[in-house]
Amino acid sequence: MTGWIAVAGLGPGADTLVTPEVTQALADATDVIGYIPYVARVAPRPGLVLHPSDNRVELDRATLALELAGAGRRVVIVSSGDPGVFAMASALFEVLETRPQDHSADIRILPGITAMLAAAARAGAPLGHDFCAINLSDNLKPAAVVERRLRHAARGGFAMAFYNPRSKARPHQFARVLEILREECEPGRLILFARAVSTVDEALTTVTLAEALPEMADMRTVVIVGNPATRRVGRWLYTPRSVSL
Amino acid sequence: MTGWIAVAGLGPGADTLVTPEVTQALADATDVIGYIPYVARVAPRPGLVLHPSDNRVELDRATLALELAGAGRRVVIVSSGDPGVFAMASALFEVLETRPQDHSADIRILPGITAMLAAAARAGAPLGHDFCAINLSDNLKPAAVVERRLRHAARGGFAMAFYNPRSKARPHQFARVLEILREECEPGRLILFARAVSTVDEALTTVTLAEALPEMADMRTVVIVGNPATRRVGRWLYTPRSVSL
Repeated sequence: MTGWIAVAGLGPGADTLVTPEVTQALADATDVIGYIPYVARVAPRPGLVLHPSDNRVELDRATLALELAGAGRRVVIVSSGDPGVFAMASALFEVLETRPQDHSADIRILPGITAMLAAAARAGAPLGHDFCAINLSDNLKPAAVVERRLRHAARGGFAMAFYNPRSKARPHQFARVLEILREECEPGRLILFARAVSTVDEALTTVTLAEALPEMADMRTVVIVGNPATRRVGRWLYTPRSVSL
Repeated sequence: MTGWIAVAGLGPGADTLVTPEVTQALADATDVIGYIPYVARVAPRPGLVLHPSDNRVELDRATLALELAGAGRRVVIVSSGDPGVFAMASALFEVLETRPQDHSADIRILPGITAMLAAAARAGAPLGHDFCAINLSDNLKPAAVVERRLRHAARGGFAMAFYNPRSKARPHQFARVLEILREECEPGRLILFARAVSTVDEALTTVTLAEALPEMADMRTVVIVGNPATRRVGRWLYTPRSVSL
């Protein structure tokens, strides 16, 4: 019995954005672990055990994966997007740190198309120059850290991508983010709200910072804030490769 | 004749990291345009015209693509990694801005696995918390802008990914980057040098900032600098999801 774990990125939603590497891992698996809507994207088949779980139990999922792999099972932990971007890969290593007996476990991280890059591609190329990715939902991150990072990102002239901009648990946080951006950036700064890219619910809206409203984001939205040079051409949004000083 | 352009990300190197969407676009194409080593990754077939070109002619490539599509050809512009991350998508929109007659052209940007996410996956999860992506090679970007962004990224507590860290034209730039990092970060900060991930030339090295040398990077390397909490577990490198203050 040689068990293994693959932490696999399913991409933003469309099957055509799942890499062949991930498809192969799912075909070889005996067990699939993950958040309910992500496990629902895996086709059931005889011999494959699905382990869907609710939100906020990342460490339980990682522990289950290590125990199943230790018993010889072939386990895929599924994330949407890329597993290394605000997803299950870090949670697995957090648990691994507490289990020295598993340090030599057969683990692979299989990258995927992360939400900000799928959204950027649909809109044009708003992340075509230096950019930051910031997770706004992390309950383990104090608001002061978010604020400090937003100000540094703005003052550095970075474009920004925000994951999990708005949750039921913290409905006011994104309003505060917009306030900080208004202190740091010009009112005409362009902002893309990209919801559920590559699914039937896909919706893209580009507005200026002056026009942006907290309600434009929900938990299925990735928000991209352009840099000072980001502009529109035709129906597209893009950031030039050069710096205008 | 209905021509189109797809700007497609081939991923970091392995065929198993090319999305089905990109594979389909290449199968439907009449013309493939791009930098010589990327076009070399596309299998020749009857009816497919390959247009390989040398480095630094991004705008010429974009113009050729628009002219071919205008004549009814089905054109794929290939980038390595993701076309929207320091690659051909922005160059195409820069040219589109000068050609209003092409603003309604049929253009699609097809995302791919970008180098930093492939490298992060191979090493573990060093980008598991907030991070920045910075292109060090852009000749259009003054050194002062690079320095300012590095200092803001470090002071904001971001992990960082550097693309194109070292070129023949600017061999000393990456040494200067390490100097700035040494002013801003503690000597034990972990740095991953990931070369040619997913190809036969793949090589990964993790060192501390104190141990890092400019020669550890070349043009096929992506460099990932951890945040203050980034650490090793077993053979892996990862950044926890929580913030340690």
